[in-house]
Amino acid sequence: MTEILPSYVNGDWWTPEAGVSGTEVRDASTGEVVASVSTEGLDLEAALDYARTVGQASLGALTFHQRALLLKQFALALTERKDELYAVSAAAGATKTDSWVDIDGGIGVLFAYSGKGRRELPNSHVYVDGPVEPLSKDGSFLGRHVFTTLPGVAVQINAFNFPVWGSLEKLAPAFLAGMPTLVKPATPTGYLAEVMVRILVESGLLPEGSLQLVSGSVPTLFDHLRLGDIVGFTGSASTAESLRSHPAVQTGGVRFTAETDSINASVLGSDAVAGTPEFDAYVRQLVTEMTTKAGQKCTAIRRAVVPTASADAVIDAVRARLESKTVIGDPRAEGVTMGPLASIAQRDEVRRQVQALVDGGGQMVIGSTDAPEVRLADGTTSVASDGAFVSPVLLRFDDAQAEAVHTVEAFGPVSSLITYDTIAEAADIVARGGGSLVTSIATHDPAEAVALASRIAPFNGRMLLLDRDDARSSTGHGSPMPGLVHGGPGRAGGGEELGGIRAVLHHMQRTALQGSPEMLTALTGIWHAGASTNSDDQHPFRKSLSELRIGDQLASATREVTLDDIETFAQFTGDTFYAHMDEDAAAANPFFPGRVAHGYLLVSWAAGLFVDPEPGPVLANYGLENLRFITPVSPGDSIRVDLTAKQITPRETDEYGEVRWDAVIHNQNDEIVATYDVLTLVSKE
Amino acid sequence: MTEILPSYVNGDWWTPEAGVSGTEVRDASTGEVVASVSTEGLDLEAALDYARTVGQASLGALTFHQRALLLKQFALALTERKDELYAVSAAAGATKTDSWVDIDGGIGVLFAYSGKGRRELPNSHVYVDGPVEPLSKDGSFLGRHVFTTLPGVAVQINAFNFPVWGSLEKLAPAFLAGMPTLVKPATPTGYLAEVMVRILVESGLLPEGSLQLVSGSVPTLFDHLRLGDIVGFTGSASTAESLRSHPAVQTGGVRFTAETDSINASVLGSDAVAGTPEFDAYVRQLVTEMTTKAGQKCTAIRRAVVPTASADAVIDAVRARLESKTVIGDPRAEGVTMGPLASIAQRDEVRRQVQALVDGGGQMVIGSTDAPEVRLADGTTSVASDGAFVSPVLLRFDDAQAEAVHTVEAFGPVSSLITYDTIAEAADIVARGGGSLVTSIATHDPAEAVALASRIAPFNGRMLLLDRDDARSSTGHGSPMPGLVHGGPGRAGGGEELGGIRAVLHHMQRTALQGSPEMLTALTGIWHAGASTNSDDQHPFRKSLSELRIGDQLASATREVTLDDIETFAQFTGDTFYAHMDEDAAAANPFFPGRVAHGYLLVSWAAGLFVDPEPGPVLANYGLENLRFITPVSPGDSIRVDLTAKQITPRETDEYGEVRWDAVIHNQNDEIVATYDVLTLVSKE
Repeated sequence: MTEILPSYVNGDWWTPEAGVSGTEVRDASTGEVVASVSTEGLDLEAALDYARTVGQASLGALTFHQRALLLKQFALALTERKDELYAVSAAAGATKTDSWVDIDGGIGVLFAYSGKGRRELPNSHVYVDGPVEPLSKDGSFLGRHVFTTLPGVAVQINAFNFPVWGSLEKLAPAFLAGMPTLVKPATPTGYLAEVMVRILVESGLLPEGSLQLVSGSVPTLFDHLRLGDIVGFTGSASTAESLRSHPAVQTGGVRFTAETDSINASVLGSDAVAGTPEFDAYVRQLVTEMTTKAGQKCTAIRRAVVPTASADAVIDAVRARLESKTVIGDPRAEGVTMGPLASIAQRDEVRRQVQALVDGGGQMVIGSTDAPEVRLADGTTSVASDGAFVSPVLLRFDDAQAEAVHTVEAFGPVSSLITYDTIAEAADIVARGGGSLVTSIATHDPAEAVALASRIAPFNGRMLLLDRDDARSSTGHGSPMPGLVHGGPGRAGGGEELGGIRAVLHHMQRTALQGSPEMLTALTGIWHAGASTNSDDQHPFRKSLSELRIGDQLASATREVTLDDIETFAQFTGDTFYAHMDEDAAAANPFFPGRVAHGYLLVSWAAGLFVDPEPGPVLANYGLENLRFITPVSPGDSIRVDLTAKQITPRETDEYGEVRWDAVIHNQNDEIVATYDVLTLVSKE
Repeated sequence: MTEILPSYVNGDWWTPEAGVSGTEVRDASTGEVVASVSTEGLDLEAALDYARTVGQASLGALTFHQRALLLKQFALALTERKDELYAVSAAAGATKTDSWVDIDGGIGVLFAYSGKGRRELPNSHVYVDGPVEPLSKDGSFLGRHVFTTLPGVAVQINAFNFPVWGSLEKLAPAFLAGMPTLVKPATPTGYLAEVMVRILVESGLLPEGSLQLVSGSVPTLFDHLRLGDIVGFTGSASTAESLRSHPAVQTGGVRFTAETDSINASVLGSDAVAGTPEFDAYVRQLVTEMTTKAGQKCTAIRRAVVPTASADAVIDAVRARLESKTVIGDPRAEGVTMGPLASIAQRDEVRRQVQALVDGGGQMVIGSTDAPEVRLADGTTSVASDGAFVSPVLLRFDDAQAEAVHTVEAFGPVSSLITYDTIAEAADIVARGGGSLVTSIATHDPAEAVALASRIAPFNGRMLLLDRDDARSSTGHGSPMPGLVHGGPGRAGGGEELGGIRAVLHHMQRTALQGSPEMLTALTGIWHAGASTNSDDQHPFRKSLSELRIGDQLASATREVTLDDIETFAQFTGDTFYAHMDEDAAAANPFFPGRVAHGYLLVSWAAGLFVDPEPGPVLANYGLENLRFITPVSPGDSIRVDLTAKQITPRETDEYGEVRWDAVIHNQNDEIVATYDVLTLVSKE
């Protein structure tokens, strides 16, 4: 009897009692038993509660930046032991390239979120969304939106095709948001997710309760979920449908986000005829999408939408490329470029769906459903093997309106070719998919790209424009990127994953806050105009991060601007714009009363008014944001500046951090001349 | 027989054939029949298709700014004829104040969205979301997110309590997004929505197919919906549940957003004891929320959560205020401050729910379910009337854990008081509501506010902090604001409305674009670094909006920065920061090689390098954004600047518009010194 794959729950490894027989999982190429899984006797409710209490507490004790740093350390721990992941990945039928997408791709998501978390989130617990909304004329009542961590557990249900990437691309944003994860891998490749989790557990880096693993089926899972929990599901549309209909989701307030395989399209532009770089790039990409992971990608191209005139040329080019590039076999054999499907069950299912496509009007123009000749691990070749092998298949549909081509998915190395004659037809064909994860368009004509993209964008979560300029640098039709949203409307599940910080926010609740400037400052950690300030004897530039407080303020001295100053500045900078130099022309301008000071003069002088010149904790002014010039300054006017510490972001790994200062320049009549934020780097001590 | 209230579909007014008898609607105070409604024979599918074709086309021909301007014109048209709306509003039981919230509040949403649409959206059709995501090292492959209009119809199902506001707060963002609306008011007050739509139709301002009205029930509505459509529902949790379970939503990709009445709480802080301004503000707000619209607001306070020690004082103060301020009666009678419920059916339902609260452990400490004495339209007083009158009721629950107080809603002037002893208890009580639209907190202690708010924020769509600083300027617990999100998790429906542009985007699809800079420029209308530029003989500052094109560029001359320049600038501005003045100290700074030029010197010189001084189409530099200093500039270095037209936003109602310029300063080694956007106003001609 094979050992049962352990789960990791309640801070410990867990397996069923001796004698329990699990579901067997087999090697995709050889049919040998690799593992078995069972959750018999697992206390799922206790695991969920453990996450909601212990996991929430340990993650809640960390700031966004601290969590982001841990993600980087997870990535390093996995990198160090990635040979172990590659070793078992082959059992799933993954070639080296396939494994790279899964394993290094997954690690890459951790690195990406670690970087984004530290660059784009504050080093605190609350994310502020959008600007202040004034709610009263006197400024005493303001509105602002914040995101706070959902108080429950993030349950992540993954598909079999990317056991590592699929887990990590869901874990990273949940972890960064402060939500503990319970991951439930797909049974056929759960042994790979188990190795990944084991490496993380053994690294000792995981905050208590932040990650749990359930190896095996969890039919009662949704009965235990409640408001504050979120489910991220990747898999078939039909499973998504049945999960979504559970009362926990329908009325219980459990968030449910689904990413389901969809009938994605790739459109060849009418300009991209044979011989153009776009035609070649289109064919290369189509073959790659058919064969990578043996076509078991929810983003794979299922519909090749090409001009009628180019159909034959496309088929010939695809055939030639498949024949010259594709070696089917056990990924452990030298030279194999396409492995088997994940299981015999998947192979049989793909054969059934190809038959459904044929029955629906498709004609197999490349490949067949017969058992292909494959290269075995020992280097020999055979048509008879115990592996889940299929050959790449391209079907052609003469009727673009055939129902099957838009609804039947063969989740393997299978695409269908459909032809169009006008842009409107091509757009309609794409939309017939009922919502897709991704559509790519190969064209070098911006007008054609706009015409097509504007019609199909609302049916797609992602669109890739392929042409000679990006053919070599393109990350490819089928590859979700950490910084770009992954998901799509309708048939694609209606969910959204990744997209950088967007996915973090999907694990948080947006709440509109209303209150006084003082209260909004307390609740957001960001100083709001009107909240109390502190102007003690010490210049705020002399305070290190350990001393500086939100609201610390410098109210500067006043300085008069003379016509001579304006002329001096104009001559020095070369900025002799007429509004500064020519009284009549300036007065004729709708915005100026006559000659006015340069905006750059005002902010330069403001710096002179607020700066403290001696070496101290303020290391550099690295930028400036949201500068608006409100009231022009005429010769004889005076200016002064209020500089207030607005937001303090200490860095975790440096001896300094960012301080954002609120700067307001007033004139002698207390009118606002300019507002902006000054960005500085300040030492911690 | 009363005339049947017409619908407005397919560009025309429609009523059932003669002889059809509709559902009767009665005056809330007198019981007299006001109208009857029926959709017998209405071709709903044709109306939806009309929206998807004619409505989408007419709105699609307009830019965001053009739609926003129309919203303002709608608001003006309604303002001009608002007497007609007020006249019929009284029939629904609304007092003058109630009607003001509904009618002027609704018009206010139109004004707010008109302003935000023009300030915060581009004057085009595509909304760009977030920054560029670099996807290749050589810059030839980029990612960017856009929102495009959903291709269907926005179906808006409204509640009876705010027939005007409820319609307009859904219409405004849908219209701005470019989605045609089909509005289905609640039957009891549909006659008021009909007047509103009639005024808009008669104004002649409505783009063809952009607004349709169905007066009456539409049981088959969801059978006709499909991917690309969106439903905005306001009403009961149970109706939301049944609508959400329809296959069109579950698997058809129809977006469904629900805003349901929830068991909202208002927490009195432990510092806010009797005698404090917070205590008084809390009591005032509670009484207002109980009596406005006779408590028929989904945002009303259902649970008053107060410290045990303050319970009696709160009850006494609420009683005193209710007795001194509340006059129940026909809103048409002088002096009436609280009208009837919307219908006899609602009155009976409220009585049933109050009984359920009593059965669940509540004790009525103020008011009763007996028929109250009311003031009739003729000024007389009576306990016997045909109106749907109830008196305000406050219940007290000794057991804060009683199920009923957290789940039973009496949708009328009814609140329940619950007591707590610790912040943790108060937070748990709020969370027991299972997700709320809004919770308010009365405290003047920022620490208590933070402790409470951080625990309850994820259970709320909105939180109001009430204290002495904002008591007078607060817009109130029960009032959704156009700029703040309205909606909440769990029991509150899980949806989000309003929130400014956020609600517009809920009517659009987010899509990640990948492509070359050239293609992203074409698709977004915003110049992307790496896309083609045009540096013809004419300085781009000499081009009006009618001549200027995205990508028009000025590549400046080069200018050397000397130590003398740095000293001159330091003396002129007063900015003698050591990094510019002291070689040794500067070299000791981690970011500088030695003395460096001021950042403000660099941007001032850059302006001198790119400006064209003579009067011309460029009217003013009104701001600057995203300035980052990348490489320090030492004495002897040279700088030059590339200025490229990045985004052009002509204004609809002015003779000029905004031009955003991409500015990049390079040094003599082609290293990037600084990047920023320059914001200018430029004449159209």
